[in-house]
Amino acid sequence: MRLKVLSLLATVLLSVSAQETINVVSSEKSPVVGENGSVSFRIYAPQADSIFIAGSFAPSPVKMTKAADGNWLAVLDSLKPDLYSYRVIIDGVATTDPSNPYLLRDISTQSNIFVVPGGNADYYMTKDVPHGTLSKVWYHSPSLGKDRRMSVYTPAGYEKGNKRYPVLYLLHGMGGDENAWSELGRAVEILDNLIAEGKAKPMIVVMPNGNAKEYAAPGYTSEGFYIPSGNRSRSPRGMFEDSFMDIVSFVDSTYRTVPDKENRAIAGLSMGGGHSWIISMENPDTFGYVGLFSAAVRWNGGDVDKEMPENQQIALKRQFDNPPALYWIGIGKDDFLIDLNKAYTAYLDSKGYPYTYHLSDGGHTWKNWRDYLVLFLPRLF
Amino acid sequence: MRLKVLSLLATVLLSVSAQETINVVSSEKSPVVGENGSVSFRIYAPQADSIFIAGSFAPSPVKMTKAADGNWLAVLDSLKPDLYSYRVIIDGVATTDPSNPYLLRDISTQSNIFVVPGGNADYYMTKDVPHGTLSKVWYHSPSLGKDRRMSVYTPAGYEKGNKRYPVLYLLHGMGGDENAWSELGRAVEILDNLIAEGKAKPMIVVMPNGNAKEYAAPGYTSEGFYIPSGNRSRSPRGMFEDSFMDIVSFVDSTYRTVPDKENRAIAGLSMGGGHSWIISMENPDTFGYVGLFSAAVRWNGGDVDKEMPENQQIALKRQFDNPPALYWIGIGKDDFLIDLNKAYTAYLDSKGYPYTYHLSDGGHTWKNWRDYLVLFLPRLF
Repeated sequence: MRLKVLSLLATVLLSVSAQETINVVSSEKSPVVGENGSVSFRIYAPQADSIFIAGSFAPSPVKMTKAADGNWLAVLDSLKPDLYSYRVIIDGVATTDPSNPYLLRDISTQSNIFVVPGGNADYYMTKDVPHGTLSKVWYHSPSLGKDRRMSVYTPAGYEKGNKRYPVLYLLHGMGGDENAWSELGRAVEILDNLIAEGKAKPMIVVMPNGNAKEYAAPGYTSEGFYIPSGNRSRSPRGMFEDSFMDIVSFVDSTYRTVPDKENRAIAGLSMGGGHSWIISMENPDTFGYVGLFSAAVRWNGGDVDKEMPENQQIALKRQFDNPPALYWIGIGKDDFLIDLNKAYTAYLDSKGYPYTYHLSDGGHTWKNWRDYLVLFLPRLF
Repeated sequence: MRLKVLSLLATVLLSVSAQETINVVSSEKSPVVGENGSVSFRIYAPQADSIFIAGSFAPSPVKMTKAADGNWLAVLDSLKPDLYSYRVIIDGVATTDPSNPYLLRDISTQSNIFVVPGGNADYYMTKDVPHGTLSKVWYHSPSLGKDRRMSVYTPAGYEKGNKRYPVLYLLHGMGGDENAWSELGRAVEILDNLIAEGKAKPMIVVMPNGNAKEYAAPGYTSEGFYIPSGNRSRSPRGMFEDSFMDIVSFVDSTYRTVPDKENRAIAGLSMGGGHSWIISMENPDTFGYVGLFSAAVRWNGGDVDKEMPENQQIALKRQFDNPPALYWIGIGKDDFLIDLNKAYTAYLDSKGYPYTYHLSDGGHTWKNWRDYLVLFLPRLF
C-alpha cells in the first residue's frame, strides 16, 4: 500500500512538466474559507502520525484530526478579515501545505497564505479594476558602485499617457528586500484598489532594496540560491541612507515624475522606517510626506534614555522649519519598538514639531504594515 | 520531547513577521551542490518514518537515510548540468523541502529547485552583467473584451535610451500563464546572459497569457486563490490566436519597437507552439522568425494520418511564398508530440518549405524548452 501511494505520487510529481499529458491528482482546495471567518484545512496523509497547522491566526499550532480514510481535518472559527500565513507540521517537520499552491517567502521561510475577506483584507486581493504595472528594474548606484534591483509600480494608464506623477519611496525592514512590499505587503493590490476607488491619487511607488551591500533579493544575484537571513544582509549603518539620492536621481530621470518636495513621499517599516526617518531629515527639501511604520527610530544605539545626538537634532530642526505636509507615525501597542517610538514622539512634542500618530493593536507584523499602508496612501499628495 | 519540538517550531513560525527580533533556526543549506554533479539533501525530522526525494533527476523517488540524531540524508552523484526541481515525501505526504526557500510553481504544484552549474545551466543563473527589466503589464484586448496581464522583458539600457528594438513573442503551454517563461523558463536570466555575451541581440520579449478566457495567472485575478489546472484554464480553440493582434498593437504602441516583419519573432512551447504555428501562418507578413518548441501542431484533431485542412494549407503556402527568415522546429525524441511533428515536417518537406529542425533527447520538459530558447535566441534578428 505504501509503495503504491509513493508510486502514484512519483508519477504525478515527475509528470509536472509534461503539460499536455498531465493528470494532476484532483486537489481539493485547502484551506476553504467559509462564512463568518470559518476556515477548514484538509490534508490527505494516511501514514502520518501527527499534523499541526501553525499560523498567524493562533498563538500556538492547531492540531489536526485524522479520519479513518486518511484525511486530516482542522476547522478554525471566527477569524477576522485579514491575509493569514501558515505552515503545516507533518510528523514534526514544518513545511508547506501540499494542497495550497499560494506561498509567500519571508526571509528564509516559505509560508502558505489565505485571505478571510472583509475590511482592509479586501484591498489585498486583485479586483476587476484598472491595474498598474509592477517592474523589476536595475539601477546604477554611483555611491555604492554597483547595479541594484528595485521594484517599481506605475499606475494604470502610465504607459499610454504623458502625465507626470508623484512618487512614494516605500522601504522594507531588515531581512526584507525589493520584493517584500509587493509580495508580503500586497502593495500592488492595495494601490490598484485605493486608486480605483478614488481614495488614493495615482502615483509611482519605488520599492528599492534597503540592504546596501546587497545587489538584489535572494536568488537574483550572482551568489545563487543561498539561505537568506537578516544577519547576512545587514549592512553598515548609514550606507543605504547615504546612497539613497542615487535612487531619486535614477527615478526622476527614468520615469515621468513631478520632481519636487510636494510630490515626493518616503515611508518604510521597521529598519525601513529608520531609513525614512534619517533620509527625510537629511534631505529636508526633498520629501513632503513621511511615513514611519513600526520604525526603528534609534539614536545612541536605541537607548531611549539618552539624548538624541546634536547633528540629528539640528537636522530635524531644519526639516521642521519647513515641515513636511504629513509626518505619519504608526506603531502597535505590542511592538517591541513601542518605547523607542514613545521616546521619539515625546521629543517631537517637546519641540512642537507636528506629526500624526496612529497607535494600533498588535505588534511588529505585516498585518499592521498592510493596514498602515491602507491608512497612509489616501493622505498623500 | 515532541511537544518541545513543536513549541520551538511554533515560536520560529510565528515570529517570521517580526523582522527585527527574529531568531531563525540556523538553516543548513540543503541541497548542497558539490563537485562532479554530486548533490546532498539533508532534512532534520526525528519523528518521521520515511522520507523520499522525488525530482526531475531520477525516474523514481530516492529514499533518504535516517541517522541516529534525527537527520535524514540522501546523496546523488554525477548529475548533469541543469536546473532540477524536486519535492520531498514525508511519511507519504508530497510537499516542499523545509530547508530550501527556492520554489517554482508549475500548474498547481510548488517544487523546490537547484542548479548543477555548467553548460546551458550557466545561462539560467543571474550573473554580474547588465540586467533587463521584467514588467507585469496589463493590456486591453478589444477582441476579448477584457484587461489581461502579460510579462514584458525590456533589455538593459531600454529605460535610458531612445533606441527601437525587435520583439519576440514567447508563448507558454497548457496550464501555464504569463509567468511561466520568466519563472520556469528562466527567460530573463537567459536573455541577460546571452545579450551580455553578444550571442543574442538586445530585444523586447513579450510573454502574454495564452489561455484566452483567463485574465491573468492564478492569484492575480478577482477569482482569488483557486487551484490551477490545465482543464480549468482551457479556452475555446482559436480564441487566443484570433485575439493575438491586440497584443501586437498594444506592444507596438507602448514600447519602442521596430514594427515590421524582419524585427518580429514568435515562438512557443507545446500549446504555445501550436499558437505560434497558427498565428504565424495567419499573419504571414507579421512574423519573420518562428519557433515551434515541442509544438502541438495539430490538424484534424491531431490525427497525423489525415490531410491538413485546405484553409491551413493555403495559409502555409501564403506564409512560405515569402518565407520567414527562420522557421525553427525543436522536439525531443521521447516527446509525446513527436509523431505530430514528424508528420508536419514531412508535409513541409513535401512542399519544399524551408525550416530548421532540432531533434533533442528527452521529452516534453522545461529542460528542453530552456535549451531550445538558448539555441533559438542567437538566431533572431
